[in-house]
Amino acid sequence: MIKAGIIGGTGYTGVELLRLLVQHPRAEVVTISSRSEKERPVTDVFPSLRGYTELCFSDPDEADLESCDVVFAATPNGVAMTHARALMEEGVRLIDLSADFRIVDVSEWSRWYQLEHTCPELVAEAVYGLPEINRERIRDARLVANPGCYPTSVILGLTPLLEEGLVKPKELIADAKSGVSGAGRGASVATLFCETSDSFKAYAVPGHRHLPEICQVLTRVAGESVGLTFVPHLVPMIRGIEATLYGQLNDTSVDLTRLYQERYAGEPFVDVMPEGSHPDTRSVRGSNTVRIACHRPQNGNTAVILVVEDNLIKGAAGQAIQNMNLMFGFEETEGLKAAALWP
Amino acid sequence: MIKAGIIGGTGYTGVELLRLLVQHPRAEVVTISSRSEKERPVTDVFPSLRGYTELCFSDPDEADLESCDVVFAATPNGVAMTHARALMEEGVRLIDLSADFRIVDVSEWSRWYQLEHTCPELVAEAVYGLPEINRERIRDARLVANPGCYPTSVILGLTPLLEEGLVKPKELIADAKSGVSGAGRGASVATLFCETSDSFKAYAVPGHRHLPEICQVLTRVAGESVGLTFVPHLVPMIRGIEATLYGQLNDTSVDLTRLYQERYAGEPFVDVMPEGSHPDTRSVRGSNTVRIACHRPQNGNTAVILVVEDNLIKGAAGQAIQNMNLMFGFEETEGLKAAALWP
Amino acid sequence: MIKAGIIGGTGYTGVELLRLLVQHPRAEVVTISSRSEKERPVTDVFPSLRGYTELCFSDPDEADLESCDVVFAATPNGVAMTHARALMEEGVRLIDLSADFRIVDVSEWSRWYQLEHTCPELVAEAVYGLPEINRERIRDARLVANPGCYPTSVILGLTPLLEEGLVKPKELIADAKSGVSGAGRGASVATLFCETSDSFKAYAVPGHRHLPEICQVLTRVAGESVGLTFVPHLVPMIRGIEATLYGQLNDTSVDLTRLYQERYAGEPFVDVMPEGSHPDTRSVRGSNTVRIACHRPQNGNTAVILVVEDNLIKGAAGQAIQNMNLMFGFEETEGLKAAALWP
Amino acid sequence: MIKAGIIGGTGYTGVELLRLLVQHPRAEVVTISSRSEKERPVTDVFPSLRGYTELCFSDPDEADLESCDVVFAATPNGVAMTHARALMEEGVRLIDLSADFRIVDVSEWSRWYQLEHTCPELVAEAVYGLPEINRERIRDARLVANPGCYPTSVILGLTPLLEEGLVKPKELIADAKSGVSGAGRGASVATLFCETSDSFKAYAVPGHRHLPEICQVLTRVAGESVGLTFVPHLVPMIRGIEATLYGQLNDTSVDLTRLYQERYAGEPFVDVMPEGSHPDTRSVRGSNTVRIACHRPQNGNTAVILVVEDNLIKGAAGQAIQNMNLMFGFEETEGLKAAALWP
Repeated sequence: MIKAGIIGGTGYTGVELLRLLVQHPRAEVVTISSRSEKERPVTDVFPSLRGYTELCFSDPDEADLESCDVVFAATPNGVAMTHARALMEEGVRLIDLSADFRIVDVSEWSRWYQLEHTCPELVAEAVYGLPEINRERIRDARLVANPGCYPTSVILGLTPLLEEGLVKPKELIADAKSGVSGAGRGASVATLFCETSDSFKAYAVPGHRHLPEICQVLTRVAGESVGLTFVPHLVPMIRGIEATLYGQLNDTSVDLTRLYQERYAGEPFVDVMPEGSHPDTRSVRGSNTVRIACHRPQNGNTAVILVVEDNLIKGAAGQAIQNMNLMFGFEETEGLKAAALWP
Repeated sequence: MIKAGIIGGTGYTGVELLRLLVQHPRAEVVTISSRSEKERPVTDVFPSLRGYTELCFSDPDEADLESCDVVFAATPNGVAMTHARALMEEGVRLIDLSADFRIVDVSEWSRWYQLEHTCPELVAEAVYGLPEINRERIRDARLVANPGCYPTSVILGLTPLLEEGLVKPKELIADAKSGVSGAGRGASVATLFCETSDSFKAYAVPGHRHLPEICQVLTRVAGESVGLTFVPHLVPMIRGIEATLYGQLNDTSVDLTRLYQERYAGEPFVDVMPEGSHPDTRSVRGSNTVRIACHRPQNGNTAVILVVEDNLIKGAAGQAIQNMNLMFGFEETEGLKAAALWP
Repeated sequence: MIKAGIIGGTGYTGVELLRLLVQHPRAEVVTISSRSEKERPVTDVFPSLRGYTELCFSDPDEADLESCDVVFAATPNGVAMTHARALMEEGVRLIDLSADFRIVDVSEWSRWYQLEHTCPELVAEAVYGLPEINRERIRDARLVANPGCYPTSVILGLTPLLEEGLVKPKELIADAKSGVSGAGRGASVATLFCETSDSFKAYAVPGHRHLPEICQVLTRVAGESVGLTFVPHLVPMIRGIEATLYGQLNDTSVDLTRLYQERYAGEPFVDVMPEGSHPDTRSVRGSNTVRIACHRPQNGNTAVILVVEDNLIKGAAGQAIQNMNLMFGFEETEGLKAAALWP
Repeated sequence: MIKAGIIGGTGYTGVELLRLLVQHPRAEVVTISSRSEKERPVTDVFPSLRGYTELCFSDPDEADLESCDVVFAATPNGVAMTHARALMEEGVRLIDLSADFRIVDVSEWSRWYQLEHTCPELVAEAVYGLPEINRERIRDARLVANPGCYPTSVILGLTPLLEEGLVKPKELIADAKSGVSGAGRGASVATLFCETSDSFKAYAVPGHRHLPEICQVLTRVAGESVGLTFVPHLVPMIRGIEATLYGQLNDTSVDLTRLYQERYAGEPFVDVMPEGSHPDTRSVRGSNTVRIACHRPQNGNTAVILVVEDNLIKGAAGQAIQNMNLMFGFEETEGLKAAALWP
């Protein structure tokens, strides 16, 4: 049993980490911090975990993180970087679910996140925690930058095309749709039930923070710089991301479904569906699986790739645990074997 | 007061027509037919209309349609065409909300709808009932093919760009999302609450029946043939369509918002929003308005046009009444003045 | 045209008042105040009203309320009472949608609302604005205390039984369920989409603020003091209240449906449904109608009365306008004639 | 590993059984039948189970049920009784999730279910599968009548009061609310998304089939006949039942919360919450737990008991597996340890 700590335990990502970890056979959560709820039993805030944990939220300034083997940061952007150096010095491995270590170009990070970075030297060291493209580096990482929810779906959906040079890299489009949990658990008018239920909209069309993250990784995958139009939308559902990806094919002779099946053969959490499929987000609700289906409508030049994930699991907490499993030599699927909750 | 008849009164489009018409100051519904509910009071099936109508559903074979001034067909595809000739002969004007008269090329229609057309000569005469591009022809029409719900949003969203030749006509993408009412009121597992709520998916990616309709109209608008990738999605909401449209600009110097505002100036039911807006479907829920916002992310070559409508109103019954108003010389907004129901 | 002002225009009740009033043929909104949004165009906050109003939110301290004929207070509890005296002195009639003037016993009011009352003398003068039991007094009122959302449904549902002395007045049960809009538009974790969607719960079982209001009115109706167990619940829907009311009958020979139909005959906004009906909240969504159905399961001693309303209309803004219509001698249904938006 | 069969695998209860069983360490599903989907791979219909099962649906007439150790019937009422005798003869134990064996009085069963019973002798033998009141008898049962979803919540909620004789047994009220999955997966207009979403209603007030089942069990628990008013409601959510139960106390000195905690101490799937709690259905979504909270509003005579469960798990498939665990001597919680999926 390794000892795990969670910083920022009252957000959706934090409590999802806790839910997964209390059921994980190889890890034990020894501390979970929350400034707003400190000293309260976790189950007062999250009764769904009654019977699964006796922990109380600790004060983040007093949490005993140094005795952990691994710390998960499920904090707002800008917090994890204030803890990182101390944890590294104590030999504690850090999996950061916020954006602090995702963007290699620190000045670009500052522009998008409107913060000064406090430990740029660790940005260079951090490993981007997407196992399907970075598995070996993750195993040895001290510091993992866990991918954003949208980037996980878009990157996994475009990687096979870009690796093979099959699409024009400057004309990519990602029309992505997220459930409301992606906006977090902070009190806000915009994410009230009455502001989001029974409605649908695009948002952040001029520029969403996940855009530079996606482009950075896709550029690496493609071996050349990419151009992406990324339009996120808000869906009246709790969990789930669906990304509909459009690429202009250089070569229409390729069998897309076979290409994807081969690329992801052996991947425990990527399911490439048969020709003609339309994955729905509920087919992955509560699971760490990404499902992908490939289309080429009217046998034209446009590849349409459909990707679904649970944004709180493969798009956040589940992927973080997948990374932890790799880092500590556990079976990669340990603690992540649950089938989706359907319906 | 003109006399109106409705064929197919138990679907969502039929009852929406009835709801709008019972509150219309210039029209009176004299007959509404339904095979499955014949002889039952309408308000037994739709208690929301208690106090607004005393009608009973009539048997479609016995409904007195000939004495109407106008008949609305809110029937499954293939039914309106069986009534059209008789109505024309009696001098009754027909507004068909199904697809029977939308596609000029009858053999293409047959391919998509898997039916033989029984009065192809009337297809040629039918006027496509989208007032914003066809207003004058609608006024004198005997037979109006009321547009589909998706086509209304996609055509209105792309018309200004295509009319001005500003985008490459072969590389259009329409990523459209519809509430579940678009699938109709027939008993079906696929549209049960538990199959659609709290989930999201793309569907009909290989080819949706609205594709040829959209392409036919956009080709006319553009003056040259267009190529469109059209991907519909199902949203867990009752009413509403959002279309996110992508076009590759030939000329990035154009002020998109101004272009749209000028194109639709004076249009009572098209609202072009200010720069930077993100319309949500609830802002048009229950109203006949289409709202549009224009973006050009990262000042790139891709125009992103956001369009929202209420699929049952501007996408169906409201547009049909707008057409009726034009055909009978009423004020175009008569009976369609309600503001959206928000929240 | 009378001049109307709205204090507290950014909540759901305030914007609903505005939506109804901009479409009202006899009233014009001349000022709408909001501390948080002052000087912003109303349609920036509520794009659904684009084309219906050009107003900007005014600073509540500077709003020209004195020139209004009627002012609606859609403010948090404790605000309307600070305006009431000044408005009365200027001859402006006030319809308060908050709780400031609903409870005759000021000390009880203080206990439930945790506030000192600043104008108790006006509490005595205020008329409880439920037209179905108080119509004549409302016509001449200077100050109307508009009923709470739950009280409207529970009082209308129990009044016929209590007026006739048909049930034991000490053993009443009201199991009430509300959509989330009843909780207001303030930023709060508890009413986020992800905290309320796809879930259901009872709340405030130990005591809800609407309990003393209901008991006060039912005591007046019954002519003796009543005992009520009131359990509110939160439903994952935007609008709507359903109250399931239980009373122990003294006399099981009564025809409940007929009793209710006779009591509410002529009431424009109370619809007593036929024997055996089960009203759903969507049948009144967007309308000012209350629907009621009466049951006596297994022919036993327990009357079960089902009541539905739109909490923002008959439970708030619509009822306020019904009161305004009475106060100014307009047709009682003026501006309130819309049929429910279904589906 | 025991061998399990499922009859009726395409309903929500059937697929939930499958989901739980494919993850159960002591049981293996060897056959799952479906008339409508026979020969199709299960994962074609339920892609959420891709990677968890390779089974195809079998023809119910040809399914090899005799070689199973246990068969679960997740069929419409009237089907399980046609299989029961043959299974008993082959020594196969049967857990029936339909109503065929729940009502001891066969003529009453016939009246409510409108069917003739084909094996009344097995009704007498069948054990009602609610472990919290019947654990020992379940261990040895050949045939278990798995409780209905509403009965599970109402019986567990009222049992402690009735066992102790603390409430008047003739004046019980159960105001129960269910998610839409309780209505099953059959194609039906009434449970379409657009007919149930964003709405709430009572139904079956004159008499619901679960009423005789509840009364039969409560009568046994109370040791005298009970009178219950049972009003079910439909909530726009997928899973979950909340029951608000009202009892008139004979004795108000009792500490309700303590009484319930003592009654259910040691029960692995009943969680009695602290004084003042309000359980929500999402706190048990995806888990086999029932949560209960006890109130006595205004220190009056009325006990208000709040109960929540996941209707598909503790109200159906989970309880069936809990029964299987007891019948085969497994740990009672085996395969049922998952925490609720929250949010």
